[in-house]
Amino acid sequence: MIIVKVGGRALPNFRSIAEDLRDHQPFILVHGGGDVVTEYSRRMGIEPRIVTSPSGIRSRYTDERELEVFTMVLAGKVNKELVSSLLDVGIPALGISGVDGPTLIAKRKKRIIIMDKGRRRIIPGGYTGKIEEIRTDHLNLLIEGGYNVVMAPLARGSEGEMLNVDGDQAASKLALAIRPSHLILLSDVGGVMWEGNVIRRLTPDEASDLAPKLGMGMNRKLMMAAEVARSGIEVVISSGLVDEPVTNALKDGGTTISI
Amino acid sequence: MIIVKVGGRALPNFRSIAEDLRDHQPFILVHGGGDVVTEYSRRMGIEPRIVTSPSGIRSRYTDERELEVFTMVLAGKVNKELVSSLLDVGIPALGISGVDGPTLIAKRKKRIIIMDKGRRRIIPGGYTGKIEEIRTDHLNLLIEGGYNVVMAPLARGSEGEMLNVDGDQAASKLALAIRPSHLILLSDVGGVMWEGNVIRRLTPDEASDLAPKLGMGMNRKLMMAAEVARSGIEVVISSGLVDEPVTNALKDGGTTISI
Repeated sequence: MIIVKVGGRALPNFRSIAEDLRDHQPFILVHGGGDVVTEYSRRMGIEPRIVTSPSGIRSRYTDERELEVFTMVLAGKVNKELVSSLLDVGIPALGISGVDGPTLIAKRKKRIIIMDKGRRRIIPGGYTGKIEEIRTDHLNLLIEGGYNVVMAPLARGSEGEMLNVDGDQAASKLALAIRPSHLILLSDVGGVMWEGNVIRRLTPDEASDLAPKLGMGMNRKLMMAAEVARSGIEVVISSGLVDEPVTNALKDGGTTISI
Repeated sequence: MIIVKVGGRALPNFRSIAEDLRDHQPFILVHGGGDVVTEYSRRMGIEPRIVTSPSGIRSRYTDERELEVFTMVLAGKVNKELVSSLLDVGIPALGISGVDGPTLIAKRKKRIIIMDKGRRRIIPGGYTGKIEEIRTDHLNLLIEGGYNVVMAPLARGSEGEMLNVDGDQAASKLALAIRPSHLILLSDVGGVMWEGNVIRRLTPDEASDLAPKLGMGMNRKLMMAAEVARSGIEVVISSGLVDEPVTNALKDGGTTISI
């Protein structure tokens, strides 16, 4: 069993990913789609809001209206289109979100501090969560029954609210709970880049040491990959835009993090 | 096991329906939500299109853009909100659509004839389907595993496209395939009305005879109810807006169609 995360930037190549996945069943596929959310938010008159933390980190702020768009676009449009593409190539698949079951239980920050015109200001935390618990009984039932599962990165909050969660985090936490042979993180880059080249192999310790020297997105991805790899699961960070992206990832065609 | 269809007009009372469903597990719940689709279509600048058949029947025409809104609103927003409400009252639930599995396989009309300014015109059929096949293995897995299933009325077309399907039809076809003890169709009316009163009981034959004398919506609903009842499953058409709507339906609080 493998877990594959397909980031939003790799989704345009999903037809190839689907064809390749025929030879890698059973799988759980966690998808992104933030760019599609932004497009539909704008169509509904909602401008994405970026906030800056006191330490200068800029991040997207999901308010209640935008969370609704996340739910519609990720659990509705993107999830069902991916399920349809898998069915098109003969792969039995069911699409759910982390809310269903529930599968992913997350915690929302009640308040956050942001910088507003140079001054600190406390605002309610957005509808984004940090995953704290994973439940997998229903996933095991489906996998054992011969189905593959496509999961939208939404979670159930501790007060019953829906929350947007990071797709890499969802895939990593699922991997730690379900223990697949491999966790494959597909995006639009060929792997972890260092001095212009893709690093082929890293131990978990090497990955943890390297992560802080990388850009924001890859930093977090690599920290999570290190944690999963440390538990004995092989993690591959590679491109979803090449031919046979899953087979390529499993044949060292990216950065493999393993003990 | 029961199958419950909750029409869009009964959704505002879903909190009561969810509390009541605690005592009626396991269940499969098929939901509507066409009014919510219309609202979001308008927000995205899509006006609902109504077409008139040569025999004068007016119906909603789902084009490709509106099908996308159906997918987002029904499989995303409405489905996940209902799952959240069930989880809120302690009911383990998973939300899928008829595309997933696939569960519902439907056929789309390639072309339809409409009246346009008094003249017949042939246009491509909309993205609406008639259900032709039901697959239930995954539903049985989940039900036997202790989960309840919430289903959005979308189907997979014979060419892999997604289609909007009628919720009553989806619930009725599922009932014929899965054979629950009861099929309960909840809407905003107390049952089948005749001369100002709710009819308490009908045999399948009585229901088939009465159906053509009723309004368009109830006509189709009652014809499907008769077909399901004829197979030995008790069907109840009743209000989702009363207290304990499911318990009420099972205690003759609507129109019961049975052999």
